[in-house]
Amino acid sequence: MIGRRPAMFGWNGPKIWRDRKDLQPCQAILDEDLAKTEFTARIIDGKLIAEEIRQEIAEEIMRLKSQTNGKVLGLAVVLVGSYKDSETYVRSKKKACKEVGIISLEENLPVDSSEEEVLNIVRKFNDDPSVHGILVQLPLPKHMNEERVFAAISVEKDVDGFHPLNIGKLAMQGRTPPFVPCTPRGCIELLLRSNVEIKGKRVVVIGRSNIVGTPAAMLLQRNQATVTIVHSYTPNPTEITCEVDIVIAAVGVAHLVRGDWIKPGAVVIDVGINPIEDPSAKKGYRLVGDVCFKEGAMKASAITPIPAGVGPMTIAMLLRNTLDSAKRAYGLLD
Amino acid sequence: MIGRRPAMFGWNGPKIWRDRKDLQPCQAILDEDLAKTEFTARIIDGKLIAEEIRQEIAEEIMRLKSQTNGKVLGLAVVLVGSYKDSETYVRSKKKACKEVGIISLEENLPVDSSEEEVLNIVRKFNDDPSVHGILVQLPLPKHMNEERVFAAISVEKDVDGFHPLNIGKLAMQGRTPPFVPCTPRGCIELLLRSNVEIKGKRVVVIGRSNIVGTPAAMLLQRNQATVTIVHSYTPNPTEITCEVDIVIAAVGVAHLVRGDWIKPGAVVIDVGINPIEDPSAKKGYRLVGDVCFKEGAMKASAITPIPAGVGPMTIAMLLRNTLDSAKRAYGLLD
Repeated sequence: MIGRRPAMFGWNGPKIWRDRKDLQPCQAILDEDLAKTEFTARIIDGKLIAEEIRQEIAEEIMRLKSQTNGKVLGLAVVLVGSYKDSETYVRSKKKACKEVGIISLEENLPVDSSEEEVLNIVRKFNDDPSVHGILVQLPLPKHMNEERVFAAISVEKDVDGFHPLNIGKLAMQGRTPPFVPCTPRGCIELLLRSNVEIKGKRVVVIGRSNIVGTPAAMLLQRNQATVTIVHSYTPNPTEITCEVDIVIAAVGVAHLVRGDWIKPGAVVIDVGINPIEDPSAKKGYRLVGDVCFKEGAMKASAITPIPAGVGPMTIAMLLRNTLDSAKRAYGLLD
Repeated sequence: MIGRRPAMFGWNGPKIWRDRKDLQPCQAILDEDLAKTEFTARIIDGKLIAEEIRQEIAEEIMRLKSQTNGKVLGLAVVLVGSYKDSETYVRSKKKACKEVGIISLEENLPVDSSEEEVLNIVRKFNDDPSVHGILVQLPLPKHMNEERVFAAISVEKDVDGFHPLNIGKLAMQGRTPPFVPCTPRGCIELLLRSNVEIKGKRVVVIGRSNIVGTPAAMLLQRNQATVTIVHSYTPNPTEITCEVDIVIAAVGVAHLVRGDWIKPGAVVIDVGINPIEDPSAKKGYRLVGDVCFKEGAMKASAITPIPAGVGPMTIAMLLRNTLDSAKRAYGLLD
């Protein structure tokens, strides 16, 4: 049902973007047309790169275990209530852990648990020396204070990197954050492993979320890029985006970024994963990015697809953060 | 001795900027020519605005004292060694405290003190309920670890706002930092009290220091500006700066920002305080900003001068942060 914008676009997208009358997400072109289109952009294969990284991590973990007489690496996941998406995501995290040799622990609490019960589980994992990373899966039930729950996670085990102390150190010169949030770290790894130069380049990050846009901008600046964050209050985003060398789209609005947003030859990293109605799909919907891929692929020199772009990198970086944490705990971080 | 660049420019400025051959700080024009020049920019009088704020703070403190049966407000300053500039600055802080009704405590340690001795003083002030703000005056002697000393200051009393937890919360949506660093807060106050709209505007911050550029960018973004940080690795800073509505210069290179960096009608906030040789001055030098004021004042619609621009705002904001801290401690922060 192409064209019914409220239903189709931005199910998870911020309302303030959707309300903007001046921006026209691409409605007519579905990415499936792609097969019929010629485009010149190199496709950045996030799945392949993530596999390489997971392989490297598995090897490092083997070495670490032999160096420490078989000490274990553990990642604990706290899941409150049963959200289908969360369960799927937790399952794939567990699988990825197993493949590289990380033990995954899980606590499932009923949706009506008290905040104190969740905090107690977090504290238990904080004190457990076999746990090197703690994840609290979002969303939490509405009666819980997300900030308080996340603040309870020991900074040394905050493998998500969402702790304000982590974010503060990421922003500051001369400081080293214990962890870099997984998705932004994945974006930068994609660029580096695709031989895209960051230093001295102009970059726009679209979206300023705590978990992607904001830390991505910090990380890019640490790599000596000149960064502009474009957000819902930016009057003419296109004017800015079409001047820069790299665009990171992390806003959560399907197909918001059109071809005319992109400078010819720019590199585009698409973090968005947005469901749009698709009667031909088994589930009735399919996932697309924040970038209209077809238009983007005709302008950019390199672009990430959805799926198999940034997505697989997030879990790879979670494994990397857990490994870093264990190495730090065992005094082996180089 | 105009023209001898290494001596004249950037005594305190970052070497990497000075080494750039593509940028030409203004060498021929001294600000003293200003009296003979016509310019159209409104001069933002930081001295006057800071006085207004100090007056407001004094009144609030009087009210606070009557609400709390005369409880005191205290600001503690730790000074290690005797640097002339630090002593001057500490003296003016003490004077400002006295004027608004804040008690200032001071600890002077000899330059050969151990880090542990400094940490003990900081801990003593942390535990003292009559102290609401703690400042450790920079620079510290070389044998001390600045990061460790600053990390020892209780976040609740970090009125400088330099703690990474403060910076992290400043960067994050939905979080409220206990304190905003004084100089950036002063810049934003200057804009707001001069009726310069920030929301929806494009802003460039030149320089990305932990104490000015980085938190200023965060604060501007919190006010819904679209912010680009220009730094020493930015290839063509002028291309970016001449497109934006507000320029905050905080780089520490005398007269770096020329007229052609500024869009006609833009607003310019100059944070730089750079000594340049001036044989006609009693001390043999004078202080100028990062912006070539004369050129800036002919392009901008409003601009801050040096002195009496951002400078006086820093101390006013320090008093404001100390007052906020006391109100929080007494449960009276609205």
